[in-house]
Amino acid sequence: MFFMVQMYVNRPESLDDQQWNELRSREMEYGQSLMKKGTFRHIWRVVGDVSNVSIFEVDSNEELHELLSNLPLFPYMDVKVTALANHPSGLPEMYDYAQRG
Amino acid sequence: MFFMVQMYVNRPESLDDQQWNELRSREMEYGQSLMKKGTFRHIWRVVGDVSNVSIFEVDSNEELHELLSNLPLFPYMDVKVTALANHPSGLPEMYDYAQRG
Amino acid sequence: MFFMVQMYVNRPESLDDQQWNELRSREMEYGQSLMKKGTFRHIWRVVGDVSNVSIFEVDSNEELHELLSNLPLFPYMDVKVTALANHPSGLPEMYDYAQRG
Amino acid sequence: MFFMVQMYVNRPESLDDQQWNELRSREMEYGQSLMKKGTFRHIWRVVGDVSNVSIFEVDSNEELHELLSNLPLFPYMDVKVTALANHPSGLPEMYDYAQRG
Amino acid sequence: MFFMVQMYVNRPESLDDQQWNELRSREMEYGQSLMKKGTFRHIWRVVGDVSNVSIFEVDSNEELHELLSNLPLFPYMDVKVTALANHPSGLPEMYDYAQRG
Amino acid sequence: MFFMVQMYVNRPESLDDQQWNELRSREMEYGQSLMKKGTFRHIWRVVGDVSNVSIFEVDSNEELHELLSNLPLFPYMDVKVTALANHPSGLPEMYDYAQRG
Amino acid sequence: MFFMVQMYVNRPESLDDQQWNELRSREMEYGQSLMKKGTFRHIWRVVGDVSNVSIFEVDSNEELHELLSNLPLFPYMDVKVTALANHPSGLPEMYDYAQRG
Amino acid sequence: MFFMVQMYVNRPESLDDQQWNELRSREMEYGQSLMKKGTFRHIWRVVGDVSNVSIFEVDSNEELHELLSNLPLFPYMDVKVTALANHPSGLPEMYDYAQRG
Amino acid sequence: MFFMVQMYVNRPESLDDQQWNELRSREMEYGQSLMKKGTFRHIWRVVGDVSNVSIFEVDSNEELHELLSNLPLFPYMDVKVTALANHPSGLPEMYDYAQRG
Amino acid sequence: MFFMVQMYVNRPESLDDQQWNELRSREMEYGQSLMKKGTFRHIWRVVGDVSNVSIFEVDSNEELHELLSNLPLFPYMDVKVTALANHPSGLPEMYDYAQRG
Repeated sequence: MFFMVQMYVNRPESLDDQQWNELRSREMEYGQSLMKKGTFRHIWRVVGDVSNVSIFEVDSNEELHELLSNLPLFPYMDVKVTALANHPSGLPEMYDYAQRG
Repeated sequence: MFFMVQMYVNRPESLDDQQWNELRSREMEYGQSLMKKGTFRHIWRVVGDVSNVSIFEVDSNEELHELLSNLPLFPYMDVKVTALANHPSGLPEMYDYAQRG
Repeated sequence: MFFMVQMYVNRPESLDDQQWNELRSREMEYGQSLMKKGTFRHIWRVVGDVSNVSIFEVDSNEELHELLSNLPLFPYMDVKVTALANHPSGLPEMYDYAQRG
Repeated sequence: MFFMVQMYVNRPESLDDQQWNELRSREMEYGQSLMKKGTFRHIWRVVGDVSNVSIFEVDSNEELHELLSNLPLFPYMDVKVTALANHPSGLPEMYDYAQRG
Repeated sequence: MFFMVQMYVNRPESLDDQQWNELRSREMEYGQSLMKKGTFRHIWRVVGDVSNVSIFEVDSNEELHELLSNLPLFPYMDVKVTALANHPSGLPEMYDYAQRG
Repeated sequence: MFFMVQMYVNRPESLDDQQWNELRSREMEYGQSLMKKGTFRHIWRVVGDVSNVSIFEVDSNEELHELLSNLPLFPYMDVKVTALANHPSGLPEMYDYAQRG
Repeated sequence: MFFMVQMYVNRPESLDDQQWNELRSREMEYGQSLMKKGTFRHIWRVVGDVSNVSIFEVDSNEELHELLSNLPLFPYMDVKVTALANHPSGLPEMYDYAQRG
Repeated sequence: MFFMVQMYVNRPESLDDQQWNELRSREMEYGQSLMKKGTFRHIWRVVGDVSNVSIFEVDSNEELHELLSNLPLFPYMDVKVTALANHPSGLPEMYDYAQRG
Repeated sequence: MFFMVQMYVNRPESLDDQQWNELRSREMEYGQSLMKKGTFRHIWRVVGDVSNVSIFEVDSNEELHELLSNLPLFPYMDVKVTALANHPSGLPEMYDYAQRG
Repeated sequence: MFFMVQMYVNRPESLDDQQWNELRSREMEYGQSLMKKGTFRHIWRVVGDVSNVSIFEVDSNEELHELLSNLPLFPYMDVKVTALANHPSGLPEMYDYAQRG
């Protein structure tokens, strides 16, 4: 089951460079662990913006909320979730489900 | 080079069912030809809406505009284009370019 | 898995009273069949508006899209879907899943 | 009489973790007391967001305003209230009124 | 129980002057019957606009929805409802309930 | 001459409880003096919000601006003013002008 | 008493050129009669748009609403009214009231 | 050449009363010098708001930007500029150009 | 003096293909005559949209309004005008004025 | 390949005048180096605003994102990117590509 997730990051002034970079390292590490498991299927940077377009594949809304709220940068993000479904024009291989470990 | 394209379809009252279905058949045929060539990389239906989220991979803005304006349903769509770039957290294989024919 | 669905109905001028009432009868019949199966859990009228707030319980995004696009009034609706999850403050019985037939 | 209440929580930077968690505990305790009384009928988390969709059943606008303004997190919330009514398509049991103590 | 109701009237091109004036006469007659009963407490024209600001006093959301959906111009209106409560700064006589017949 | 005034109050973090409560006392005292004079005709609380809907009766725009800008909470408010006129459907007694002292 | 009035004109397809031009002639004639009386103090075209920025000087909201609703193009306009007051930085001669006949 | 300029003033918390009043004095002094030269043709207060509607007459966009960016309160303003032109309904004397010194 | 002009074209259903193509031919011819004169400095297509971003260089607001309102497609356009000025970071040659014939 | 980039600068209160002016000097120096290379083709100030309209010519989305995120003021900007293409009405010389060093 696919969802588009758009994340907009707002760095608060109260965090200094070291704290912010540490958060970002943990964010990347956590994100990549989800990518390797196959739940975090795509991520693109929006050009000129500190935001991204992501595609998640999960089994339930609850699973998605837990993944997102565990992102180290979650308290500093605005997140917009859009439920997606297979499109009748799409080729079958576009919706192959990941082998999740 | 990736772009997110969000298409919102508005069926005009002036087209009858036969005309509309013919346009949709041609739309699907044209879309799938682009998918097979590798320029139209992903398409998802937005749940509950007559719209989709699509990802295109093209060599230039001009190529993207030509592909979109040739869609048979283009005169009946609102289209929003977002330029995307590789994300530093993304795994390298996420940005493999298609072998386009 | 719960979703909030907000439906805004726009009656087109091209449909006469008989056609419109027939559509609404079929809408009510179809909706109530889903309510009896347990997928259509709640529906409220928004006071002063031709719109409603509905809660669906489904197994997947695909199931939800199919249910919604089969609504007889679907071509005349704007629909907004919000993915919901259990809330930590909610009492357990609030999330009892329906016995669906 | 039903109302949809959408609550968006904004944590201020001036509250430290201990103060915030204490407020949240009191919020959950107060909310659950209303749920047990039957005035706070439903609560769902919006996936990916620090907001919720709630359904209240009250006897008057004044009662609703008093309940909401007594929420411990009320000073840190944006709240949107929508008046609801029974829907003609709804099954009668959907509008059973709670036995409030 | 008070509600603010903002009504925006959109005259459709399909109604001729006679039909429109007849609807408006019935609208005024119906509105004034509610005013005399005390449910329709205030109405003001928004300067420069075909809209109004109205205050209703009703016993329930259901009563308000029924009153509004019976307005002869209801199919041609956008209506926005705001639930109101007594204000702590208000003088007691501001909230005297009407003697409704 | 009637105006609808919608006031949205934003409490700044820089004011402590004592300062804020003092301002609110002065606000209520000043508001009630205007109510007794008949210029401040109605005030309702918007349910679930720290805002109100008010109706003023004044002789000129300048008088209204002076009344509003003298509100002790004015520096912490967003204010929206809507010019109102008698409505042709309104009963004559709805527009009785106050005897202002 | 001054008001800013912003008028956005929408020509309906149902009026042919002759009908439209006749309406516009009557609009100009009526507008200029108000300008000569001194109630219609200023009018500017918004560059690139079929809209204008106007300043009216009237004695009451009712007078303004009557003037506007008598504009021959009123049924085809969106109108936004903003109540204005003298500005403390303004030179006294900026607020000289017109000698109205 | 006329422009409408709408200025919204946001007082920052970091400035104390003395600093703010000094800025406002300089603002008024500078504004009135432009009014006497004839470039700053009109200013009105928006009722209930800390904003104004102003009309400038300048020879070029560059001249307008320089005038505005030299306003002592410019760093604390949101400014919206609308290019204006003579309106065909306007009386000729409405567009008399100022004798600028 | 530079202005950014954003034009959004809405084709009405009442014009057939021949009428529309004739208008577009005249639009291109007229636009190119302005380009050759140097008043219409730049035009770009917005990718995926029937709109453009244009830069005009004119001597006055009146000149710009006359140029735009003479566009054959003007009755079918939404137009947004933004006044521009030289930017202090810009290289001098970026603001060379055209030799207009 | 052309892109319109609209930059809105928000100066944070935490930076003093010296820090801010140093950032702006570096911004101008960096911007002008891109202008000389031909990637930063145009920049205009929006009149009355601390924002600009810029045109970039780059070979890819990735190149554009790198250029923008290296702007010294990037952390204090809201940036909006619009993909552009040649317009069929444009004269060929309008799309001459820069000789980039």
